[in-house]
Amino acid sequence: MKGTLFVISAPSGGGKGTLLRRVLSSVPKLGYSVSFTTRQPRAGEVHGRDYFFVTRAEFEKMVAANGFIEWAEVHGNLYGTARAQVEKELADGDDVILEIDTQGAANIRQLGLAATSIFILPPSFDALRERLTARGTENAAQLALRLANARREVLDYQYFDYVIVNDEIERATAQLEAVINGERARRVRQQTMIDKILATFGSN
Amino acid sequence: MKGTLFVISAPSGGGKGTLLRRVLSSVPKLGYSVSFTTRQPRAGEVHGRDYFFVTRAEFEKMVAANGFIEWAEVHGNLYGTARAQVEKELADGDDVILEIDTQGAANIRQLGLAATSIFILPPSFDALRERLTARGTENAAQLALRLANARREVLDYQYFDYVIVNDEIERATAQLEAVINGERARRVRQQTMIDKILATFGSN
Repeated sequence: MKGTLFVISAPSGGGKGTLLRRVLSSVPKLGYSVSFTTRQPRAGEVHGRDYFFVTRAEFEKMVAANGFIEWAEVHGNLYGTARAQVEKELADGDDVILEIDTQGAANIRQLGLAATSIFILPPSFDALRERLTARGTENAAQLALRLANARREVLDYQYFDYVIVNDEIERATAQLEAVINGERARRVRQQTMIDKILATFGSN
Repeated sequence: MKGTLFVISAPSGGGKGTLLRRVLSSVPKLGYSVSFTTRQPRAGEVHGRDYFFVTRAEFEKMVAANGFIEWAEVHGNLYGTARAQVEKELADGDDVILEIDTQGAANIRQLGLAATSIFILPPSFDALRERLTARGTENAAQLALRLANARREVLDYQYFDYVIVNDEIERATAQLEAVINGERARRVRQQTMIDKILATFGSN
């Protein structure tokens, strides 16, 4: 694995999808692993771009074939990260970013995968409720469930390397870009290039 | 100490001064500790901006009074980082960046100070020689001494958290900004704000 695996997570409705799309278009050499899910597409969601939408039977077949790095059931739907694509991109030296819920992120941690983890935190409970309400994709009962879950999910921030408060999209995007570009400047990620430079000094 | 201490270092002539001035003007809430030195000012250098230029006797008086966090003798001149200013800015919650030679950085490490360290690496030995020659501030013997020292100093990269190759000033500046802004997004640096947000969730 030569690339860096970034795991980005947030409570339900934390706005991580929007943030991620912006960063994927502004940061070069950053791959994105499209998740598989059994939930129904929302308006505007595209198969293969936002998710691979599959049936429960198809999903369970992939689970049985060890096709997922991690998978989880959230709000009654299955979500999973396909293994093949991620491993190939990392081996090629590209960075890969996974957008997963807090339960999926917990699974990644338990697997002991080397990953840089980023938690997107809404600026307040009220802001989260307003965002979920404005989205209008849940009925009242689903909304109440998501908000109740969010109260628990925000506590997972403590397991992440970085925390970005999603208060203003421009600012939060710039901060996420800085996290990714800053991580790329870590000494441990640049040994090959450093060795080439040291050779010109006759110092290695 | 509530702020973050950044230590930036490079071999002689690595161009860290230029890089640092750019970042100080582009990154907010970043203080700079002006070093003390006994060496002669170069053309264009300003007392109190680039260095505090002092006599050897004045410098030694400060050493005796424990006035430096670290000090070192490099190329026959003394260089030191004043303690008072750095400790005050960090206590106020501001970040402080120290620009010190590799020996000063080694002293900081030995003191066990919590610091995020950044090494500026020239793109090649030839590029370093050209930069030092173009600067024209050393005679042939001094130039040879600096280049000989640089061969040893570049090996210190291994003790630093981040490495930035100073190949192109715009790119290197953007990368240094990303390192600083990315570090500021670390969970451990944001606990106070996170606690305030969690309180709105009734989650802490």
